[in-house]
Amino acid sequence: MRGELEFIRNIKEKYGLKFLGDDCAVLPKDAKTDLVITADLLVEDIDFRLSWTRAEMIGHKALAVSLSDIAAMGGTPKWAMLSIGVPVSIWKGKFVDKFYEGWFGLARRHGVELVGGDVSRTPDTIVIDSIVGGVVPKGRAIMRSGARPGDSIFVTGALGGAAGGLELLESGVHYRKVRGRQRALLARQLLPEPRIEAGKYLSRRNLATSMIDISDGLAADLHHICEASGAGAEIELDAIPVDETLAQFPLLKQRAFALGGGEDLELLFTSKQKPITGRGLPPITCIGTITSNAGVVELVTPDARQLLPPAGYRHF
Amino acid sequence: MRGELEFIRNIKEKYGLKFLGDDCAVLPKDAKTDLVITADLLVEDIDFRLSWTRAEMIGHKALAVSLSDIAAMGGTPKWAMLSIGVPVSIWKGKFVDKFYEGWFGLARRHGVELVGGDVSRTPDTIVIDSIVGGVVPKGRAIMRSGARPGDSIFVTGALGGAAGGLELLESGVHYRKVRGRQRALLARQLLPEPRIEAGKYLSRRNLATSMIDISDGLAADLHHICEASGAGAEIELDAIPVDETLAQFPLLKQRAFALGGGEDLELLFTSKQKPITGRGLPPITCIGTITSNAGVVELVTPDARQLLPPAGYRHF
Repeated sequence: MRGELEFIRNIKEKYGLKFLGDDCAVLPKDAKTDLVITADLLVEDIDFRLSWTRAEMIGHKALAVSLSDIAAMGGTPKWAMLSIGVPVSIWKGKFVDKFYEGWFGLARRHGVELVGGDVSRTPDTIVIDSIVGGVVPKGRAIMRSGARPGDSIFVTGALGGAAGGLELLESGVHYRKVRGRQRALLARQLLPEPRIEAGKYLSRRNLATSMIDISDGLAADLHHICEASGAGAEIELDAIPVDETLAQFPLLKQRAFALGGGEDLELLFTSKQKPITGRGLPPITCIGTITSNAGVVELVTPDARQLLPPAGYRHF
Repeated sequence: MRGELEFIRNIKEKYGLKFLGDDCAVLPKDAKTDLVITADLLVEDIDFRLSWTRAEMIGHKALAVSLSDIAAMGGTPKWAMLSIGVPVSIWKGKFVDKFYEGWFGLARRHGVELVGGDVSRTPDTIVIDSIVGGVVPKGRAIMRSGARPGDSIFVTGALGGAAGGLELLESGVHYRKVRGRQRALLARQLLPEPRIEAGKYLSRRNLATSMIDISDGLAADLHHICEASGAGAEIELDAIPVDETLAQFPLLKQRAFALGGGEDLELLFTSKQKPITGRGLPPITCIGTITSNAGVVELVTPDARQLLPPAGYRHF
């Protein structure tokens, strides 16, 4: 069965589409500014479960994933639309109000205004389409395609927390019933924070040659950069920053989460410069180097070097 | 149970939102142009049934409803995003390819480029969120709120066809099995044509004081204009243009379709001028007058005058 990435590549080719395939579409706005826009569909029992989370958190996350796409272009989010479909039983309860409360909580912090959308009924599943528009100085959107051999590879923050949180949820741990490190780990899955400020910093100072947000997982998203850039990469396993809240898991598992787990909403980018530091920036770690070995991503350990396949979440 | 319009009014007030409540949000683009954007959620078994239609037609209609929102502002559509969620069984078949074929068929005719969106899996229902962006000369977007007492009320084309087509579908008539007038009527429901050119004409010549597309039904959409404009309206029953393909139904039913049936995607607008004619315009019919009787819409017949309630499709 074809995957969704293959499908998107196919329609891009078949219909000659030039804007598809990055975290956002970049469209001309005015003489000094480009518009960046993104849409993310979230579906009950695929992307979230009502028994695992709260309506406010779903509202937060629906916006967070789209803000993260804006961050990955170096953009500043400005407005949003929200299409929401719910069954009658959900409409009658408090879900929708709480959902919007969570959504607006995050929107206010980033100065994002809700300007439109749609409200519909569905037979039995909650669906949310989150659309965000933002701006970036003309020609300064950071695409996936700009990585060049020799560039250093960086990530913001630490990885694997969202996947670790998901595993806790799957094992029956509930947000309401835990505190401390377990709760912090669940929050990495349920309440991720988009890296808007870091993205803007990198764009403003022209520091990044390519960028993507880690939504499919480090391995998959690094492959996306390599594919778009016609390049390869090697990363050092020991250099990958692992979320400290994962300490409760064995080291092998922590690393699997950090490499393969998605939804961390950290930024993965490449740069000619090293190190990258700046006031107000989150921790930024160099994890490897872009190579000329097109399509090949290698994972380097002290004893060995192995191919890193583009494992990551796929819908189909 | 609160309806979705009440819900939208509530969040608009609660969160101080100024862009919600028209066919499109109107946002500043550059010195000469505004951006108009809209999103429409279509859900299987709520907005369409697979047994009644074809994937290509669903693709056409998903885009048509959003283009119609752009038309209702007097805008020119430019780009679109498409978020589509389907179950695995649908993904494996031809639905998605055919859907995009239908979508692109209409998109090409209107010069609309697909720039983004999302593809996701759903448990069992097809959902489509159709997002379209367009442009309108600065300050020239035609809002719902500009109708003033004394303005004439117009509609493009003829009404009721989409509702008549829906009734045929509900009675078991299938598009593939009929020809002639029955097929034409089904097409009004399944393959509606947005009135982009008429909308642009009215905007370019500054002819309309307010406008909306007829998606909820003439009665409901005229109430939307009156509410937004703080005005009332009276319309003449005999003046309302009824779709000629409805001739197979009794007159009373034809009129019920024309007044209450939605999805015709014709334009309803008000103007200080009368008549409205122009090269390339569809038939445009004056059906009544805006009054100062805020919120009151009256239906005038040769013998009587009655209140026309805002009946129309509601999800909740």
